[in-house]
Amino acid sequence: MEQFLKKAKESSRICATLEPKIKKILLNQMADALNDNTKAIISENQKDMKKAHEDNLNSALIDRLLLTKERIEAMATSLKEIAALKEPVGRVTEGWVVDSGLRIEKVTIPIGVVGIIYESRPNVTADAAALCLKSGNVSILKGGKEAENSNKIIASVLQNVLEKNNLPKEIISILPDSSREGVSKLIKMDKFVDLIIPRGGEGLIKYVSANATVPVVKHDKGLCHTYIDKDADFEKAISIAINAKVQRPGVCNAMETLLVDEKIAKDLLPALLFEFQNYGTLLKGCDKTTKIIDIQKATDEDFDTEYLENILSIKVVNSVEEAIEHIAKYGSGHSEAIISENYTTAEKFLNEVDAAAVYVNASTRFTDGGEFGFGAEVGISTNKLHARGPMGINDLTTYKYKIYGNGQTR
Amino acid sequence: MEQFLKKAKESSRICATLEPKIKKILLNQMADALNDNTKAIISENQKDMKKAHEDNLNSALIDRLLLTKERIEAMATSLKEIAALKEPVGRVTEGWVVDSGLRIEKVTIPIGVVGIIYESRPNVTADAAALCLKSGNVSILKGGKEAENSNKIIASVLQNVLEKNNLPKEIISILPDSSREGVSKLIKMDKFVDLIIPRGGEGLIKYVSANATVPVVKHDKGLCHTYIDKDADFEKAISIAINAKVQRPGVCNAMETLLVDEKIAKDLLPALLFEFQNYGTLLKGCDKTTKIIDIQKATDEDFDTEYLENILSIKVVNSVEEAIEHIAKYGSGHSEAIISENYTTAEKFLNEVDAAAVYVNASTRFTDGGEFGFGAEVGISTNKLHARGPMGINDLTTYKYKIYGNGQTR
Repeated sequence: MEQFLKKAKESSRICATLEPKIKKILLNQMADALNDNTKAIISENQKDMKKAHEDNLNSALIDRLLLTKERIEAMATSLKEIAALKEPVGRVTEGWVVDSGLRIEKVTIPIGVVGIIYESRPNVTADAAALCLKSGNVSILKGGKEAENSNKIIASVLQNVLEKNNLPKEIISILPDSSREGVSKLIKMDKFVDLIIPRGGEGLIKYVSANATVPVVKHDKGLCHTYIDKDADFEKAISIAINAKVQRPGVCNAMETLLVDEKIAKDLLPALLFEFQNYGTLLKGCDKTTKIIDIQKATDEDFDTEYLENILSIKVVNSVEEAIEHIAKYGSGHSEAIISENYTTAEKFLNEVDAAAVYVNASTRFTDGGEFGFGAEVGISTNKLHARGPMGINDLTTYKYKIYGNGQTR
Repeated sequence: MEQFLKKAKESSRICATLEPKIKKILLNQMADALNDNTKAIISENQKDMKKAHEDNLNSALIDRLLLTKERIEAMATSLKEIAALKEPVGRVTEGWVVDSGLRIEKVTIPIGVVGIIYESRPNVTADAAALCLKSGNVSILKGGKEAENSNKIIASVLQNVLEKNNLPKEIISILPDSSREGVSKLIKMDKFVDLIIPRGGEGLIKYVSANATVPVVKHDKGLCHTYIDKDADFEKAISIAINAKVQRPGVCNAMETLLVDEKIAKDLLPALLFEFQNYGTLLKGCDKTTKIIDIQKATDEDFDTEYLENILSIKVVNSVEEAIEHIAKYGSGHSEAIISENYTTAEKFLNEVDAAAVYVNASTRFTDGGEFGFGAEVGISTNKLHARGPMGINDLTTYKYKIYGNGQTR
């Protein structure tokens, strides 16, 4: 393991200084290579599929695992899109001159060696490797066991392109020891690894956060709220609430709890009930809610649960302050929204709620790299530091200061 | 401990939304309160001084510990300077509109609860608390045992100002359990603490980095190099080399190793020897160096040592490439300099050397918050992520996205 990581670290110096045009050429060649190797990739994927059926994985997992000609084409297209992104390295984000006459520039640079731990879908292998390469980083990939053969062949197709261009294949690697012990070693190798991004179940993320000495950017859960203020536009409020809950309930930026101001609860809740019934949403309400509409009672545990299903908790609150309190207590700091036409109330909510993304009059479902205009998404960080919220390719960089002098001494 | 941290976390919501002018008033009142309590502070400091003499601490430590009327005045002045800094919270660092019509703003916010672990000088207590307050953060301070009485009274003077203004005193706290176990608990309380900044000995920093589940911004060692290229201006080269080594050898941005291109070594080394002898610097050289000037031999260990003393290792290299290689192997990623009039060589060095600060034609001694124009310094981070190099007050903030809609759904 140490030998392997040492090579990865060494190749990070080469990777960090690749010219933008070379990175573009490599990524486009990789896209073509994926298409050219469709047959071989599908054949390896079939091994994973066979094992998945034998192991009785559920149909959703099996569908995510499957690679077809179309899905491989989509993977290749995604690499071409990443190739076309604006160069993330070398951006001068600040620059100034100090009293001594030194000119200081704060310039983005690659992070170095990035370990990405993920599950299931094999296209993440290509995407993660490409995002790292575009940002000048070496990637160490650890996918799910169930996709092992698919991930290996995808990585080897990408590595062949590196080798054909006389570059070390270690710029893109699959973690050689894919066991729990392998992961456990990887996250402690701060001498060689600069960042770990775990994307997956709560267990994995907790384990990595608790045991890593390498810095971690987590992609954890989202317990998102929408607060409908007394000064809300009802039409906006209803369509946003419906969208935030039902458009895709299984994702981290979906709403789990709806907060409604009591001054409008009597008028609004029946209309909301009517709309949600059209979508088959299971509603659970606090005491005040169930006095107005006839739905199931919500427990304290419900308000603390990320359902990831078409279930919604509803609570009637007496003010924006109580809404903010509730969110501070139960929110996961992911995405929170207020629906209001009142300037002062909206400002208060935006300023006082602590979350990666705070919305006024829009659905929390927009917390997404694509919707934010980042082009490609590394994930949605639930860290408070380094990267917060949707991570674009720029979040795979850090910075250094370049200082230009003409003989200055102190 | 958990009760204490819970209170700190709760007060962080109040602290985060303090108006800029209130923070200014508080900090100025705190400065005045320090001056008003000079007698009491000196009397508590005398207890620490007495114990320090009994424990036979060395004279440098004892001097750092001592508080006089003048030093308390300086502490107060420093608070007034921090009060006058530009408001770090609420800066819009990016803003754009996406296809859906949403307007997105990336806005700086306080980090939350910041734990600072430091040694010796009691003025750090006031400075760290003030920097955190100005940036809207709650501070938990853990100073050195030898300054315990001094730190306690300084913190209580600051807390009195908070209470007089009807604010929770938990906005500034001394860690109640100052033992190793107390620190060990603190760094695992990621539920309540958002960042730990350890400033101190290597042992402390290693322990905190290895055991913390809270994110850590390290203030670690600096093994800094200066490379004198064949195209260097000799006059600049000599004055910068002297300055980087002798102006203050005991600090992390002082030069430890000088690299000299072999094409100029015969001409330059005797001149350097002559100059360094004027400053009593102990020189150690590689084989090629000692063939030109008569100095002690440097071992491989010397090149791997942060002397923090008036000692310098010298190595003759055959090219900028070898200099970059040497720095990649031995450098600590702190500050590295090239002296050269050659545009292409200087550019190569600036781009390929990975360090927080890379210089052309200037002394590494400029890696400092004050010299960078940050006004006040939190420290010099040796992290690669979140904050790198000199940390100003802006580095005590993170960000959130504010998203302004008019009814958008996906």
